[in-house]
Amino acid sequence: MDARVRVAVAGALGKMGQETVKAVFGDDELLLVGIVDPKGQGKRLSEALAISGLELPIHYDVAEMIDDCKPEIVIDFTTPHTVYSNARTILSRGVTAIIGTTGLNEFELQQLETLAGEKEVGIAVIPNFAIGAVLMMKFAKEAARYFPNVEIIELHHDQKLDAPSGTAVKTAEMINEALAGIPPRAVQETVKLPGCRGGALEGVRVHSVRLPGLVAHQEVIFGGPGQALTIRHDSYNRESFMPGVLLAVKKMAGRKGMVYGLENLL
Amino acid sequence: MDARVRVAVAGALGKMGQETVKAVFGDDELLLVGIVDPKGQGKRLSEALAISGLELPIHYDVAEMIDDCKPEIVIDFTTPHTVYSNARTILSRGVTAIIGTTGLNEFELQQLETLAGEKEVGIAVIPNFAIGAVLMMKFAKEAARYFPNVEIIELHHDQKLDAPSGTAVKTAEMINEALAGIPPRAVQETVKLPGCRGGALEGVRVHSVRLPGLVAHQEVIFGGPGQALTIRHDSYNRESFMPGVLLAVKKMAGRKGMVYGLENLL
Amino acid sequence: MDARVRVAVAGALGKMGQETVKAVFGDDELLLVGIVDPKGQGKRLSEALAISGLELPIHYDVAEMIDDCKPEIVIDFTTPHTVYSNARTILSRGVTAIIGTTGLNEFELQQLETLAGEKEVGIAVIPNFAIGAVLMMKFAKEAARYFPNVEIIELHHDQKLDAPSGTAVKTAEMINEALAGIPPRAVQETVKLPGCRGGALEGVRVHSVRLPGLVAHQEVIFGGPGQALTIRHDSYNRESFMPGVLLAVKKMAGRKGMVYGLENLL
Amino acid sequence: MDARVRVAVAGALGKMGQETVKAVFGDDELLLVGIVDPKGQGKRLSEALAISGLELPIHYDVAEMIDDCKPEIVIDFTTPHTVYSNARTILSRGVTAIIGTTGLNEFELQQLETLAGEKEVGIAVIPNFAIGAVLMMKFAKEAARYFPNVEIIELHHDQKLDAPSGTAVKTAEMINEALAGIPPRAVQETVKLPGCRGGALEGVRVHSVRLPGLVAHQEVIFGGPGQALTIRHDSYNRESFMPGVLLAVKKMAGRKGMVYGLENLL
Repeated sequence: MDARVRVAVAGALGKMGQETVKAVFGDDELLLVGIVDPKGQGKRLSEALAISGLELPIHYDVAEMIDDCKPEIVIDFTTPHTVYSNARTILSRGVTAIIGTTGLNEFELQQLETLAGEKEVGIAVIPNFAIGAVLMMKFAKEAARYFPNVEIIELHHDQKLDAPSGTAVKTAEMINEALAGIPPRAVQETVKLPGCRGGALEGVRVHSVRLPGLVAHQEVIFGGPGQALTIRHDSYNRESFMPGVLLAVKKMAGRKGMVYGLENLL
Repeated sequence: MDARVRVAVAGALGKMGQETVKAVFGDDELLLVGIVDPKGQGKRLSEALAISGLELPIHYDVAEMIDDCKPEIVIDFTTPHTVYSNARTILSRGVTAIIGTTGLNEFELQQLETLAGEKEVGIAVIPNFAIGAVLMMKFAKEAARYFPNVEIIELHHDQKLDAPSGTAVKTAEMINEALAGIPPRAVQETVKLPGCRGGALEGVRVHSVRLPGLVAHQEVIFGGPGQALTIRHDSYNRESFMPGVLLAVKKMAGRKGMVYGLENLL
Repeated sequence: MDARVRVAVAGALGKMGQETVKAVFGDDELLLVGIVDPKGQGKRLSEALAISGLELPIHYDVAEMIDDCKPEIVIDFTTPHTVYSNARTILSRGVTAIIGTTGLNEFELQQLETLAGEKEVGIAVIPNFAIGAVLMMKFAKEAARYFPNVEIIELHHDQKLDAPSGTAVKTAEMINEALAGIPPRAVQETVKLPGCRGGALEGVRVHSVRLPGLVAHQEVIFGGPGQALTIRHDSYNRESFMPGVLLAVKKMAGRKGMVYGLENLL
Repeated sequence: MDARVRVAVAGALGKMGQETVKAVFGDDELLLVGIVDPKGQGKRLSEALAISGLELPIHYDVAEMIDDCKPEIVIDFTTPHTVYSNARTILSRGVTAIIGTTGLNEFELQQLETLAGEKEVGIAVIPNFAIGAVLMMKFAKEAARYFPNVEIIELHHDQKLDAPSGTAVKTAEMINEALAGIPPRAVQETVKLPGCRGGALEGVRVHSVRLPGLVAHQEVIFGGPGQALTIRHDSYNRESFMPGVLLAVKKMAGRKGMVYGLENLL
């Protein structure tokens, strides 16, 4: 019997999806069994991606694919509009979900956690698969204990659909946990240009820059008397995410309940 | 007869004012003749600043000081609330003004230009006296011709009164001049946190960061296919402004009309 | 008769070569006529690069290719070891050369300039085709007139063959031109770790960082009293070079003599 | 009886020394009892520093000061040339030493540790008192476990006496500890400009930039497939060190043996 974990990919023809398909296909411990992407309906994967040996059919629909292909884990790299519905479908069928798509809100996360509990399966919601980004967040949380004044600048290519990035939101949340109980400083300032001071997530201001040519970058800047501490992460291409994607799949195999953030799988 | 230019300083006990008093006092071509600062009323400068040899009395009021001390040029480093009134007073009495205080709006600038014309005196409005900052703006304007997509991040200590900084506004204006006629790119994005995308000055987004420990910093980031070009200026202390202040005083001696920006005095 | 410029590419299967082949092939004013790469000998380009429509044979040798294909211009993206020999071969046959390969020394450049003169053809030696990098160098030269103290940090992926980068050397040369006559500051320092202060190109220290994950980056940092001015360029992928490559080809068509640096073709 | 810790400062008229004198004088738990600086011999501190209330005489010599003033702790901010001799003198007299001066080598550190053991006193050698810098080093050590490829760039004003900085050396040492056992990558490169690749401290390259206007800055850059992680610390003025200096004094009061680095006192 094949001991490999049976994995499917939703959003397989998107940029992250394609990298994930290749990474799963190339991993000895994983078996790629299902593919979903409405854009590739009716084609075989080998036609759509020009990878020889991948004769899997591309499904239009996650539910149908699960019924046909019997995956143990579905990795979702779709869109903010479909991710919640997909995640419900996956969990409802007793399959573990790994969600790489941003866009789930607090309420949706709670619903999914409850559903995973009922179905006794796992769900990992991973805003960022880059290990460097995860370290950035961890360090930021730790530094906030000594430097309560902090702002985040995230910079991305101008094709990114949403602002701020999931990583920036997650970083701010982790910092706010560390800051719990520290009263915000009271600064009097006259803001002459609405928006120039960024968006506030509790005590943390977030600034989102969008420019062509950029890839995915974030700076967390801490200021204290006479000094500043900056933690910066640069993602230059999607290869950087694949070690984290494979790690998440392997760690979630057989695991129940919700995990939020790659740092909790390290 | 003394050939030195007769100079007065308004806001002389503020941080920039103090540096300016020392710089003017130490310059062979300039003669410090008048001091205004409501906080020092009735004291002598030597008491307030612990500089020996500066026995000038500190005036409460700009008009009174001009009548008593007969300056040719008044340098204003006061506050956004008083700068317009001060500037009118200075020009009305036939004296040239150098304005280092931010906060004048478009209407006020026009009024002052008209008044300077009527009175046949000069007025220089200088958002930034640091030569490095002026070069940054000049380069930014030039780069914008090749890279029309650009955002500005300015970072200052958290005691700064207004946002965005005068330098950021001026930089955006210069870039917008260079971009004239280039249609803004149409990017579809979902902004989930109001303000995170910064404030827009026509085609240029401006982000203002405020943290203790920082001094005065600005980055202008240009993005194009596969590349980014960044121009950054760091001001570490107020000494950096003094060569520019002295240059402005000397260039404005005897000059009529309005000059906006140090780059037009180089 | 075809009015398109006849172009050949040497080193066509290397990373820059492949991008260049695609860019030339996709340009209406240029006609791709010849391909050289020892690694592809005997194959057709369509086999080696999986681009349909490119049935050109791959030549082993530049001389042979020129005789067979009659290009007007050869673009060389080969290696530091072969570039000089290739360039001599190209010019000797009365063909214009565009050299994107680094590694030519001062003596070799002079020899090639002489040869181009004798043969009445053109040669462009372009250390960097990215317009952002060229602007960085131009701005650096200008800033050096006001800030004579400057160091360069260039950062590249760890597969780069030589250090420092051609762009860093060229930037230092341009700065040194601007600094001509300004005596270097005399700083007493105790260097405890050989090499930590970088390599000196006359008055400019150059530091080369090599790390996996990086692409191609450079910072030019100017320091003056109380301030710093930094100009940074990031190349994220080879697409960024193609507008510059195509520009160079078109500008060099019919032009004689040597041009060094894309800034002289703008 | 006075419960305050009796503290002396050597190098009290230097830049760090002056800040330290003020900080110790202003702290309720510490009593400033002795001052050493050859430059101030015969003067009182109140004359040299213009601080009222500080009537202590300035000693020429550490040994003499200890005999006269009976400090429990001596803080040394002198010079690389005198620090070892001073430290021996302090410990030999049964007094605890806090060494903020860089320049001690491995052999000297061992000698001092032995001496502190014999005399049953404490010695803290602190390359950097800025809490932000200490966090940078801690984070760097942690990140090195995931990113074994790393280089350090430290940037300082051009009056700094030695290169590389003590902080850079300490950071490299901490990273090398974390890297123990990981074989260095084998990169073939042609170095055309001696020194441009920095100085190597085992597996870590260190680059030292010196420019007027800069203060004290360091970047630790980690590179991995498709990504980079950068940790940067900026010290803008000496105030940033004082919380760390006071912390070190209080933690070392009554403590025996050697401590290297502020992180071991947190």
